Amino acid sequence: MESKKFILQEKDIPTAWYNVLAEMPEKPNPLLNPATKEPLKAEDLFPVFTEEAARQELNDTDKWIEIPEEVRDMYRIWRPTPLVRARGLEKALGTKAHIYFKNESVSPVGSHKLNSAIPQAYYAKKQGITNITTETGAGQWGAALSLAARHFGLELAVYMVKVSYHQKPYRRSIMETYGAEVVASPSMSTKAGRKIITEHPNYQGSLGTAISEAVELATTTPNCKYTLGSVLNHVALHQTVIGLEAEKQMEMAGEYPDIVIGCFGGGSNFSGITFPFLRHNFSGERNTRFVAAEPQSCPKLTKGVFQYDFGDEAGYTPLIPMYTLGHDFAPANIHAGGLRYHGAGAVVSKLRSQGFIDAVDIPQTETFAAAHLFARSEGIIPAPESSHAIAAAIREARRANEEGTAPVILFNLSGHGLIDMAAYDQYHSGDLADYEVPDAEIKANTDKLDKIL
Amino acid sequence: MESKKFILQEKDIPTAWYNVLAEMPEKPNPLLNPATKEPLKAEDLFPVFTEEAARQELNDTDKWIEIPEEVRDMYRIWRPTPLVRARGLEKALGTKAHIYFKNESVSPVGSHKLNSAIPQAYYAKKQGITNITTETGAGQWGAALSLAARHFGLELAVYMVKVSYHQKPYRRSIMETYGAEVVASPSMSTKAGRKIITEHPNYQGSLGTAISEAVELATTTPNCKYTLGSVLNHVALHQTVIGLEAEKQMEMAGEYPDIVIGCFGGGSNFSGITFPFLRHNFSGERNTRFVAAEPQSCPKLTKGVFQYDFGDEAGYTPLIPMYTLGHDFAPANIHAGGLRYHGAGAVVSKLRSQGFIDAVDIPQTETFAAAHLFARSEGIIPAPESSHAIAAAIREARRANEEGTAPVILFNLSGHGLIDMAAYDQYHSGDLADYEVPDAEIKANTDKLDKIL
Repeated sequence: MESKKFILQEKDIPTAWYNVLAEMPEKPNPLLNPATKEPLKAEDLFPVFTEEAARQELNDTDKWIEIPEEVRDMYRIWRPTPLVRARGLEKALGTKAHIYFKNESVSPVGSHKLNSAIPQAYYAKKQGITNITTETGAGQWGAALSLAARHFGLELAVYMVKVSYHQKPYRRSIMETYGAEVVASPSMSTKAGRKIITEHPNYQGSLGTAISEAVELATTTPNCKYTLGSVLNHVALHQTVIGLEAEKQMEMAGEYPDIVIGCFGGGSNFSGITFPFLRHNFSGERNTRFVAAEPQSCPKLTKGVFQYDFGDEAGYTPLIPMYTLGHDFAPANIHAGGLRYHGAGAVVSKLRSQGFIDAVDIPQTETFAAAHLFARSEGIIPAPESSHAIAAAIREARRANEEGTAPVILFNLSGHGLIDMAAYDQYHSGDLADYEVPDAEIKANTDKLDKIL
Repeated sequence: MESKKFILQEKDIPTAWYNVLAEMPEKPNPLLNPATKEPLKAEDLFPVFTEEAARQELNDTDKWIEIPEEVRDMYRIWRPTPLVRARGLEKALGTKAHIYFKNESVSPVGSHKLNSAIPQAYYAKKQGITNITTETGAGQWGAALSLAARHFGLELAVYMVKVSYHQKPYRRSIMETYGAEVVASPSMSTKAGRKIITEHPNYQGSLGTAISEAVELATTTPNCKYTLGSVLNHVALHQTVIGLEAEKQMEMAGEYPDIVIGCFGGGSNFSGITFPFLRHNFSGERNTRFVAAEPQSCPKLTKGVFQYDFGDEAGYTPLIPMYTLGHDFAPANIHAGGLRYHGAGAVVSKLRSQGFIDAVDIPQTETFAAAHLFARSEGIIPAPESSHAIAAAIREARRANEEGTAPVILFNLSGHGLIDMAAYDQYHSGDLADYEVPDAEIKANTDKLDKIL
């Protein structure tokens, strides 16, 4: 019987992360200091981030960055993760395509987010920091950071987007079980939060606003640093363990992917699964296609503009050269809370502009139909976020059927949906809606960006 | 660096289950036909169970029973599961004991229950059955059977204990996502349900009642069989994959357990982890101690009587020689819904009566304190049921500390608690209660049993 899962041992956990910045054919434009509009130096980031995270953020020379032993030790709680041949899904689709997924849902918090939470908490601890802050959308990042913070003995305050705080109370409980303090954002505890609550009393929050609150708390609290779960280079760097393991496992399977797919919010799991394969495209050795799957209701890569914008709603962060819908874009309340972010990271944006990366935007109901098919054929109930990758993989397999081809498709199952069952209930009752953003709204929102620089 | 996890490959999934009935020094008394009080033959069970399950139930001669290839194929969705050295917990306890756990929580439905759901659904399919029924307490068994039924194309109706139906809506959603019909029990859809609703309109249900309803539906519906998630011999048989894998993994670790612990509801995960090790006690080769950890509020092994009783509340099932609190015992609404069952299976009961198995009963608040410590030291949030095993392991480690010994302790982490976070919320807010059953209540309830035979 052919293998279904390709299983590595603890010794196969990568010993270094892959730093795509060192190998990209053309570097992204620099991050800019929001006050001076000058290119950022690592020191400019020290007030907000740990020094090591700041250095990694700007490191565009070292192709491999060593994973500290303390981080690998904690990775061993659940890594390496399995690579799975989705034979059940293939059969359900009647496709000759070979579909594989990397199963990041087996982490104890149910998603890939731990891969970066651990090093970020570790670097804080190493620097003598006692308190960290962050934001979280659906709660996946917050849950991961709560566990990592607990492990390294750090206090953690999490600003959780208000709509998720109420929609996903279990994620809040998980964070509290690990010992974190969870605040619904926008809150009255920060200037940024007070301002938006005053102007829009019923505002249900966004990642952009929650980031503003967390950054503000970090910069106004002694011995406190901010951490981020996506968008930035050092987060993408940490996530490359996903693709590095997958590369070994595809070798075990005796195949190489023609198409690699990740869902896309800020880019963390997408970067993690794709960058290690992308490097073989840079060298010309391979010609793999990379597809970012984003929600129709938050289509920055497919319909946004590529220019400098803030990473947060209040404008506290550096200016990032990104595909963006505008930093005050307020996405619809879809269940894939982790994908409700207005912009894409600088590296992914640059690669997209140069044609290395494709993107598709997918309606919510299509993602839940894909999730359902996947649950029933592979047994695993996927997170609403990850279901975008599944839906994109299904589109590719169906196209291959029409074209009579048999590509090897690999996607990242970034997390499970066991804590998102309320969303499945809505799908079952036929109450799920799609939200297409009018072009005029995107234009009005991004036209404002011209004033930033 | 020493290994934390001991990882097997797909080829290491056992090819046969271990049938303890063939090797026990003294067989349990026979199951009795409830009408005639005569020992049951397999044919007597055919109206309720699939023929293969019925045969396995009474098979006391074959030490190994082959696992069908179709079952092993589905096991490969998540098996083999990791064995983990709980170094974080050891450190938190300051113990010299070596603590290991078998991590059954990595299954896609979050518990060990799939191990038996798959063969039971497979045997139904093979026999040409189209519909199956079952009951579920916390929903772990129902979720597992829903996935297995979907895989083999069977229709499934699940009677879910009413208190869990309302307390754990996510588990209901999971079952519905896989395509099962879920009914709160007691319901008006069966005679047994109508009777108890009429007599006790506010009754929140019990496993005993839900079993009655599911058995009644199976025996009154064409081409429909009943399946059970615990208690019976064939269920324990299927669960031995847990201990058989663990045995290989303890070898990889270079150790052998002095103490093996499982939580105890009807006995399925407890049997699964212990029986493969127990056989070396039968042969005199080892002298391992086996500990069943049950809730203080449902203490059949520690405070029940050992005599014939029904497996269900209405008296539809065969009479089983069991440790029991009486088949109409109504346990308190603790969060470990899977442990709210009045009796222990015939094999475990016999082994307990002969001194092969120890038992402890543990207050609810102690189990949540243990769960909290485990979550924070090992990263995994355990199911309320599994937390009983953790609490018992912690007791053993603390006793070892006092006695200056360093035993090797192995327990089964039967499931994760990500869908039980409401229970953790209650623990955080200090609202969790303990329920000790008064001796007089147990006596009154079990005295009635004398009339059965």
